[in-house]
Amino acid sequence: MLAYLAAGGEDLSAVIPLAAAVELVHTATLVHDDINDHSLTRRGKITVHARWGRTFALLTGDYLFSKVYELMAPYGREFNMIMAQACVELVEGETLQAAAAKAGTIDQETYKRIISLKTASLFEASARMGALLAGGDEQTVEALSDYAYNLGLTFQIVDDVLDIMGDPETMGKPTGNDVVQGAGAIVAQNGKKINHQVAVAEKAAQADDPIQAMMARLRESGAVEVARMQADELARRARQALDHLPASPARKELEALVDLVVNREQ
Amino acid sequence: MLAYLAAGGEDLSAVIPLAAAVELVHTATLVHDDINDHSLTRRGKITVHARWGRTFALLTGDYLFSKVYELMAPYGREFNMIMAQACVELVEGETLQAAAAKAGTIDQETYKRIISLKTASLFEASARMGALLAGGDEQTVEALSDYAYNLGLTFQIVDDVLDIMGDPETMGKPTGNDVVQGAGAIVAQNGKKINHQVAVAEKAAQADDPIQAMMARLRESGAVEVARMQADELARRARQALDHLPASPARKELEALVDLVVNREQ
Repeated sequence: MLAYLAAGGEDLSAVIPLAAAVELVHTATLVHDDINDHSLTRRGKITVHARWGRTFALLTGDYLFSKVYELMAPYGREFNMIMAQACVELVEGETLQAAAAKAGTIDQETYKRIISLKTASLFEASARMGALLAGGDEQTVEALSDYAYNLGLTFQIVDDVLDIMGDPETMGKPTGNDVVQGAGAIVAQNGKKINHQVAVAEKAAQADDPIQAMMARLRESGAVEVARMQADELARRARQALDHLPASPARKELEALVDLVVNREQ
Repeated sequence: MLAYLAAGGEDLSAVIPLAAAVELVHTATLVHDDINDHSLTRRGKITVHARWGRTFALLTGDYLFSKVYELMAPYGREFNMIMAQACVELVEGETLQAAAAKAGTIDQETYKRIISLKTASLFEASARMGALLAGGDEQTVEALSDYAYNLGLTFQIVDDVLDIMGDPETMGKPTGNDVVQGAGAIVAQNGKKINHQVAVAEKAAQADDPIQAMMARLRESGAVEVARMQADELARRARQALDHLPASPARKELEALVDLVVNREQ
């Protein structure tokens, strides 16, 4: 919606179904993720999976995805191509992540590919569609897409760091869930490989929670600070992309959004 | 593809991605169904769920659904609206079915709604899109849609009867899986209510497999023959709809397809 306004759009009601579709894609993947992660809480509330069971949670995700399709259909070919591509990439990213979690290891390149596919793609598609619907010229569309892509990467690194460092009560969901991926975020900056198998082996060897032990090691390694620096650099690129746009209240909001993503603690 | 040809279409390659999209919607729902039903085999082969586990099976279904979206996008607004509506109805039908299975009871009206939503909708959408792509006039499009809708209902009743009567080896999947629904198919003709709870209660009371016992009762009740008669009536309506089309090899194939659906034993 902000991309639409920043690109000169004037009728917010025209972009709302498009924005709702993006939000519902995200929601559908969360509902399915919570099945796979056995998560009991999300945004401080009970998950669909925990409340209604696996079958209905699976169908709820499928239903949301079908409603996305229904919301998008009237926008025609160009928009549907962008959204379809983002959905394909999103699932590819989640599949890569699941494969890395299963293998218990993740390297820098794979981590970057995962967050690009599973998070930044939908951010980018969202801004691109908003800018296109506003009738923005090519430079405007590309600037907003570039902004959103880098904002998405920033968001995911911060999210993964919070998963390791955050307070479960503030977060509204259990921390440590994505520790393999969180470790990946850190590793991506350090060039080392952190092997989840170590944690698994520790589980057999000691009574302490290996995930908690791994999180503690990551916190003490100083690697988290390096990950935050990387997030700051990506945030800088996001802000820089906005330089190509005329000043407007929406552009100011997009700038503020970068700060919100970088500085959030939950 | 046959609807496209029967409506006068001449370039099969134009309709193939559309046909593939319909097939992939169906495949995606099968992959997700097999998670919910814990099915180990499908079409005589191991299921995605059994081979790769729940997480990857769930993502495989989501991926197939995303590829459907990608295949459909180029066809533009009208086709995407038809497909989106069919997908929404399909998931609604599966949700109704899961709710009925959970409640352990199903009545005639609910059964008819379930098979209309979860099966006949996609059959109808498929034929409608094929006929529209061929540039068929309104009467042709409606005749082919009507044909496919009734063929879908016929298919599902026969499928549910086979689930109760069929030989697991011939079927390539375990029978009795959809026994609640199969019972619904029978009940729909008899006007009685068969309560799955009875079978559940039997489980506590006796050592015999209650699902097998329920299937045996259904086989002996004569109700299966009534269900077959209902399938024959729907098949008749499907054939009748074809009367509105000019004679063609494709129309002959569509007629033969009705016989195949009614007479199949697996």
